[in-house]
Amino acid sequence: MLPDEIKTFAALFEKLPSIGPRQALRLAFRLIASGQAAINDTARAVAGLGRVSVCPICFFVHSGKGSCSICSDPVRQKDTFMIVEKETALISIERTGKYRGRYLVVGELAKSGILESWQKLRLGALKKNIEESCENKKAREIIIALNPTTYGDLNAAAIEKELKNHAFKLSRLGRGIPTGGEIEFADDETLSHSLTRRE
Amino acid sequence: MLPDEIKTFAALFEKLPSIGPRQALRLAFRLIASGQAAINDTARAVAGLGRVSVCPICFFVHSGKGSCSICSDPVRQKDTFMIVEKETALISIERTGKYRGRYLVVGELAKSGILESWQKLRLGALKKNIEESCENKKAREIIIALNPTTYGDLNAAAIEKELKNHAFKLSRLGRGIPTGGEIEFADDETLSHSLTRRE
Repeated sequence: MLPDEIKTFAALFEKLPSIGPRQALRLAFRLIASGQAAINDTARAVAGLGRVSVCPICFFVHSGKGSCSICSDPVRQKDTFMIVEKETALISIERTGKYRGRYLVVGELAKSGILESWQKLRLGALKKNIEESCENKKAREIIIALNPTTYGDLNAAAIEKELKNHAFKLSRLGRGIPTGGEIEFADDETLSHSLTRRE
Repeated sequence: MLPDEIKTFAALFEKLPSIGPRQALRLAFRLIASGQAAINDTARAVAGLGRVSVCPICFFVHSGKGSCSICSDPVRQKDTFMIVEKETALISIERTGKYRGRYLVVGELAKSGILESWQKLRLGALKKNIEESCENKKAREIIIALNPTTYGDLNAAAIEKELKNHAFKLSRLGRGIPTGGEIEFADDETLSHSLTRRE
């Protein structure tokens, strides 16, 4: 009953994160209602993503060729690295302005805690980078900044195993009660962490 | 810090229903990670929506020219109409297989209950259609199938006012306890409706 164009659109969009079959249809109807010019703009914007490059060192996105602005910034620390799962985490960390080292975007992790082969290649690129640019072929610190969830912990352990010979110090982000949070509603594990790591 | 292509994409997508700035970025990163071929397929799928036509009688989408398959179906009742807000509601009604009349998609309604001028034009097209195709220039029944919410009720009242001279009967969908619902959790208004309209 629906035109093929809508079916094709929905089939592709329903596979994207947090978009189900119902929302994919809703998006299609909204775009159709917004008219030909808006549809063309949107199609062009999607196609434009094909021109975005991925930095061969940290795997964050950037425009242009070669390495990204963070990796090629001479002022940033060359011996400190942070492993993030997603690009959005890197953006959040950068927004704090508190971190002056470099990154590795390891990509979406499996719930099983088993690293994909392309993720091992990314960690391999980091190791090679450390061997080439750090004293004693070891990073001063690698911060494994994964979410403090069960699957984050599993994956952090797997990444630690891969990198333990390439860093003097391996660390994770501090756990505790979030700013604005209430002690009453904190779960036991968060509360225990906030006690052992009290500031 | 983000490439312009991602900013352009996010600016367009964050305006779509249920997609905020954060999800728009996530979509961009997911599409980039999915590779050039997937990006091109997605861009083509969006552009394809530009080829979808809107039926000049009921304003539902269809492929091809002229009126849609529902409006041009000689078997469907010519004197019964259902007003729906969104295309997705029409799809849900069709899925029941219980309705054999025709439709009018009136389009997304304002919370204020005031009809937009283009929506009045759609109702005007329906009136003209009724005058031309129904006996006594009146529809046997017009079902105003808007959501049973405050703004749905406001808009239903506005639509009723527009159409009252064009139908022998104006009705709305029955309210009551949804199948699988629990009496204990039904709100007072739903429960009152289910009592007055008991089957």
